[in-house]
This record gives sequence, structure tokens and C-alpha cells, in this order.
Amino acid sequence: MPELRMNLITREWVIFAMEKGKRPQDFIGAREKKRHPEFVETCPFCPGNEAKSPDERYRINGEEGWKVRVILNKFSVLSRDGEKVRTNSGLRKVVNGVGIHEIIIDTPVHNHTTAVMPADQIEDVLQTYRGRFTEVYKDPRVEYVIIFKNSGHDSGTSIEHSLSQVVGMPITPRQVRNRTEGAMKFFDDTGECLMCRIINDELSDGSRVLFNTKHFVSFIPYAAVSPFHVWIFPKRHSGSFADARPGELQDLASNLKAVMSRLYYGLANPDFNYIIKSGKPSHTDSEYIHWYLTIVPRVAMTSGVEMGSGMFINPLAPEVSADFLRNIRVPEYGR
Amino acid sequence: MPELRMNLITREWVIFAMEKGKRPQDFIGAREKKRHPEFVETCPFCPGNEAKSPDERYRINGEEGWKVRVILNKFSVLSRDGEKVRTNSGLRKVVNGVGIHEIIIDTPVHNHTTAVMPADQIEDVLQTYRGRFTEVYKDPRVEYVIIFKNSGHDSGTSIEHSLSQVVGMPITPRQVRNRTEGAMKFFDDTGECLMCRIINDELSDGSRVLFNTKHFVSFIPYAAVSPFHVWIFPKRHSGSFADARPGELQDLASNLKAVMSRLYYGLANPDFNYIIKSGKPSHTDSEYIHWYLTIVPRVAMTSGVEMGSGMFINPLAPEVSADFLRNIRVPEYGR
Repeated sequence: MPELRMNLITREWVIFAMEKGKRPQDFIGAREKKRHPEFVETCPFCPGNEAKSPDERYRINGEEGWKVRVILNKFSVLSRDGEKVRTNSGLRKVVNGVGIHEIIIDTPVHNHTTAVMPADQIEDVLQTYRGRFTEVYKDPRVEYVIIFKNSGHDSGTSIEHSLSQVVGMPITPRQVRNRTEGAMKFFDDTGECLMCRIINDELSDGSRVLFNTKHFVSFIPYAAVSPFHVWIFPKRHSGSFADARPGELQDLASNLKAVMSRLYYGLANPDFNYIIKSGKPSHTDSEYIHWYLTIVPRVAMTSGVEMGSGMFINPLAPEVSADFLRNIRVPEYGR
Repeated sequence: MPELRMNLITREWVIFAMEKGKRPQDFIGAREKKRHPEFVETCPFCPGNEAKSPDERYRINGEEGWKVRVILNKFSVLSRDGEKVRTNSGLRKVVNGVGIHEIIIDTPVHNHTTAVMPADQIEDVLQTYRGRFTEVYKDPRVEYVIIFKNSGHDSGTSIEHSLSQVVGMPITPRQVRNRTEGAMKFFDDTGECLMCRIINDELSDGSRVLFNTKHFVSFIPYAAVSPFHVWIFPKRHSGSFADARPGELQDLASNLKAVMSRLYYGLANPDFNYIIKSGKPSHTDSEYIHWYLTIVPRVAMTSGVEMGSGMFINPLAPEVSADFLRNIRVPEYGR
């Protein structure tokens, strides 16, 4: 019998259509992925081509050249210049598109995806995320910042070099408002943070947990929207990613690498998106907001059901996804 | 300068990133699509293979064999049998997956997509939709019915033969609740149906209108989520698709064919989803619900921005999408 489970954060239902008889192995990428070289002379993000992105905002240097660079996005979806102007005339509600759109070059190595980066490189990337997150929020026009990574064609990018993006929006998305309201209502009803409750519940159940490290826990959500959908939560209650401490980021790097390498070796390097979902820096002390990271490997297509109802269909039980990933052997596991 | 516009139905923002310099022509399918034959002996949906789908629920017969067939979906995402059981234990909110999942075979001709079907065939399909919509709602376990069509790989289907689907869900999706609440609030504030206001506004502006036929108007939404996203609204206020009258469905068939053929010839037969968004039959007389049809050609990928914020990025102004489609010449236009 199929089952519908409610995602308590979005309060949307997910249909688990296990009757379709899919096994985890069915989601291993069918196409052999092209292996890219370590360096591509024409890649604007490879070392030596820094002149192609002169608007550098930040960098971390290593022993031989830079390790991480932050640059302005040449193809920004928002304009860096101008005052924010909002107009509401009848049915037309418009905000001019001012804001910040930066690119984080995660690594100088052209073919390094998160799964195969050294853990200290991932830590540098996460520290850069936090720095930009805090910095972009200082722009008074910015209301909401998202940090995310697209990897591979099905994730919405055509760029091979491993990049992340920071977008500072001039508005708060409705989806974010809905989530915040839901979490607030849960807190009002129970006196507890919904996310803290979910973390405790997952840890005591255990069947969906992937890695329980010092400060973070990664697991397949009880109502995962798709096979191998993963959440990574800080175990310490905190409303904002801006509040993450250096030791915590080191631990997050190791947990994230553990997850990403299982996806990489278990599913033949799937395309993926990951996103940091967080309150503003000023929400750090919120009793009901709790930041986290969500990873969605692009192994299933959305169809008319998702578009027509907002509900997702997941053909794989979260417990099966978790069990499969936990048992993936990783050939070499960086420090 | 980019622009953010609010979709008044979802109350979510869409980023119009016109600075990316995309033209309508950039969304013409790059890959040459394989031309399929009119009949495929191994296709379970082609005439002669009816024995492969014995659970027929409905059919329309023509002069030579059937024109439309409705069958049970062998790979149903919901179970047809069983009582609905809902359990709420702490964080686990579950409904067992009972409901209805049917397939509508839109045409006996293997390679006929909506754009090239005769208008009277589309009318038969729409009448079948309405019949199934009403019928499936009679199941007391069903709370919400969606009718949709997936066409082509990027829409989430691997099946060539033109099919539609009807899903009767045992719950009401949260997204539907949100939309209904929004429309209700607009009605309470203004005394008007939001959709009726939008229709009048689009008709008087005209820049986004595609086809204004007797009973329906098709247009690119002011805050279209992607290039060539189209809405088709009945001009007569009505809360439910169940209430559509035969003459209206004939007109809708002709409006839908006009839109689909512009997409087909203008964008080289893009993959697409279309969905009927409607209140229940019992919502027919609602003052604030107004049913419609939405068409999303799959010409752009979603990325981490959409996943991270719920906001869509549309690189093409709706007015440009509309102008492009209005000017597509259709070689032969069926009656």
C-alpha cells in the first residue's frame, strides 16, 4: 500500500509510491559521465584566468595560489546598482531587481566536486559561505540571502567547474514566510523548536540517520521529496547560519563530505543541488527558526503531479534510501 | 534593470532576469526530435492492443474504432482498494495511499500530440476529462482531483503515445489550501473574484493576451514562472471544471489547440506539462474560486534558486513571450 507522509516544515504531503517496485540501484546514473581534466585552459574559473573575473570580493589563499575565490556574477540575475523601488498598483506588484549575486569558486581544481574535495577544502568553502552570508545581509536593500550549489546539467547549470552561488534578494520569498509561520505556530503550540524535535526524533529512531557527527546529524527526511534527499541539521539550536562556529563548520565539512561521497560512489556522481536554509543573522536567537542544509540529487524528474498540486511523488522509502547510502563503501576517504 | 513581479495566485515572487539577454529563439529545442510513426505494434496504447489494458473505465467510439479510452493505471501511485486511514502520532502524519489513478489515452494515433490533433479530438479529450473529474470525486475517499498531461522526457514521462492522467488524492494539498485562502482574502478585501479581475486586466492591457475566443482567454501570466508559461481562463466565473458546458469545451478545445500549435511550430515541439487547476464540483458556486488551465513548456531548467526559495527565475519578459507566440505561423490549422 502506498503512503502519504506530511513534511512538517512545508506542511505539504509526499506520496510514497513504493508499489512502483523501484530499488535504490535503479537510480544509478545510466549515462557514463565524462571525466573532466584537472585544469582547462579556457575555463574562466581555473587558475591563471583570474583576469577574466576582475571583480573579486574575497579569497582564501593557500600555499600555492588561491583555494577559494568569490567574484561578482557576470550574468547576475539582479542589478548591483540602484535604489530599491517597490510599486503596488492594483494587480501589479513589482520590485525592481536590485540585489547581490556572487559566485564562489569552490576550488582551483577543475574536476573536483564536493565528494572528492579534501575535507579542509570543504571547510574553507563553508567558511566562505558564512562570510558572504553575513556580508551580503549588510546591504540594506537585501531582505533574504540564499546560498546554493548547482552541479551537473539536470541541476540547472552547464558549467563544469565546481561553483556555489550567493543571491541577496530584495524581498522575502513567500515560501520562506510560510515556513517561518509554520515553525512559529509549532513553537506556540508546544513550546519547542520543531527542528529540535525532528532531530531528537530521528536520532532515537535511527532508521533514516546517515551520519551523527559531533555537531551535526545528516538524515533522509521522513517525508523526503525524492530518493536520497538529505537534510543536515546542526544539533545546537540556532536560527542563523551566521552563528555557526569554526569548530562546527569543520564538523559540517566532514559530515557533508561523508554524505556527498556516498551519493557520488553509490549513484555514479549524480547531478545535485544543495541549499542552505537559514534565518537572517538577526534571527540567531529565534526560539523557533533553526537553520539547515538540504541536498537534492537530481535522480528523478518532476511531472504534472508536482506542478498541479505541489505534492511530490517519491518511489523510494526514505528508510531504504538511508540504508543504501549507509552501506556504500567509499574507496578513499580524505581527512 | 531586472524586475521582480508577484504572482497573485501563489503570492510568490518571480525574478525577471532580462539582462541575461535571452531571445525567444534561444528556447527553440536544440535536439532534432525523432519523428514517431502513426502506429507502433508494441505500444500498449495503440489500437489492437486493448487487451493489455483490460480495466477500461470509459471510452468514446468513433466511426472506425475508439477515439478516447480511459483505463486504470497499471503503475498507479495510489491503491484503488482499501479504506482511508489517517494517523497522527506526534511528528508522523500519515495517510495510507488510497485513491484513484487513471490514464486517458487521448488519441488512437501514436504520434498525435495536442498541437496536431483535430480540434474535435481535443474536444472529446476535454469532455472525457470533465466526465472523469466528476466521476472520481464521487469516491468518498477522494479529497482532491488533478488532471494533467506530461509530454516528452523533460516533462517526466518516457511514454511516446499521447496520454493524460487523472489522480484522485486522499488529501487536499497544502498548495491548494494556500491558493484558496489567498483568493478568499482577495474576495473579502475587494468583493471581487481575483481571477475575474486578472482576466479583465489582461484583456484591457492586451500585451500578454494570446487568444481571446468566445468563452476563454489564453495569455502569458504577468508573473509567468518560465518562458511561454500560459494560462487559459474561462471568462464566465465558475469555481469548478465540473461546471464547464459542452459549447464551452468546444471553445476551449479551439483555444488550447491555437496555443499548443504555436508552441509546437514556434519552439520545435517542446516537452510540456499542462494541468487543470480547479475547485471541487461542490465549489462550482464559490464566489472566489475560478478554475483554469496552466501550460508549462519545459524549456528552462529549475536550479538551486527555485529549490532554495520557491522563487522562479524567468529570463524572458512575458510580453516578449506573448508577442513571439502570437506571430508564429501555423502551416495547417485543423477545424
